[in-house]
Amino acid sequence: MRVLGIDPGTVVTGWGIVEFRDRKFYHIANGCIRTQAKTPLPERLGNIFKSLSKIILEHQPTTASVEEVFVSRNVQSALKLGHARGVAIAAISQGRLPVHEYTALQVKKSVVGYGRAEKAQVQEMVKILLSLPKTASEDASDALAVAMCHINSTPRLNIIKGAKR
Amino acid sequence: MRVLGIDPGTVVTGWGIVEFRDRKFYHIANGCIRTQAKTPLPERLGNIFKSLSKIILEHQPTTASVEEVFVSRNVQSALKLGHARGVAIAAISQGRLPVHEYTALQVKKSVVGYGRAEKAQVQEMVKILLSLPKTASEDASDALAVAMCHINSTPRLNIIKGAKR
Repeated sequence: MRVLGIDPGTVVTGWGIVEFRDRKFYHIANGCIRTQAKTPLPERLGNIFKSLSKIILEHQPTTASVEEVFVSRNVQSALKLGHARGVAIAAISQGRLPVHEYTALQVKKSVVGYGRAEKAQVQEMVKILLSLPKTASEDASDALAVAMCHINSTPRLNIIKGAKR
Repeated sequence: MRVLGIDPGTVVTGWGIVEFRDRKFYHIANGCIRTQAKTPLPERLGNIFKSLSKIILEHQPTTASVEEVFVSRNVQSALKLGHARGVAIAAISQGRLPVHEYTALQVKKSVVGYGRAEKAQVQEMVKILLSLPKTASEDASDALAVAMCHINSTPRLNIIKGAKR
């Protein structure tokens, strides 16, 4: 199982790819798609879409995982975040990958063991779990965490039982 | 100039294509992409993306026009609308079309001549301007109106002047 995790944003979109094989996590790649705040929104969204499509083509994930959002500071930031998530889901759909959604609470609980963990704790746990040589950026760490959350949420025991038959 | 107008929504996305040739509007096609409210959001967004991509491929517009949004009832509806707009802009970007944005006020002013016009007035004016045999649905009419708004906002006189040289 190779999972693409995405932490969408109109300014910075974090992404990370984690493979789960022989009951272990393997870090494949991670990064950030940055757009200039002064560039018109449609162009920025187009860049995010193109970059994600390229990443999917290059790393061939088998499934995708995106953080689910319920709350936002205000209507304006909700609209913007919605745009970025919509573009991410369109790129995933274009790549014919199934999409899974997890709340920030689920992601933190799954990776750090505590739903209200700080950003830095997520970064540290992601570094340890994936044996990264150095801490990934906040956005890329969040993306790797949402990918691992999906792996942790997949009923592995059943898969192993099935394989034993 | 052949313009694809889009009125995005997670439940109904209206679309319409208008051609401007010999200083006249020509209606090419219009319709609505409907998604089931009970279908998970990522799947609905994927369907909107695929449908719009197919429409772009079939009708070969040269540019696209989408209604700009500033306000929304609440954070939840802003998030949802943002998703639909993001997906629409991703499909346009995938089709390599330039995107233009107009506020509802600009669209109504341009097509009806009055920025606070009712939905029914927009439908009626769209029907008259495009010589439609019958009134198009509210969402498709809004999409056709945003396409015509872009045509009206393009400095045609300059183009004509340029052609005279």
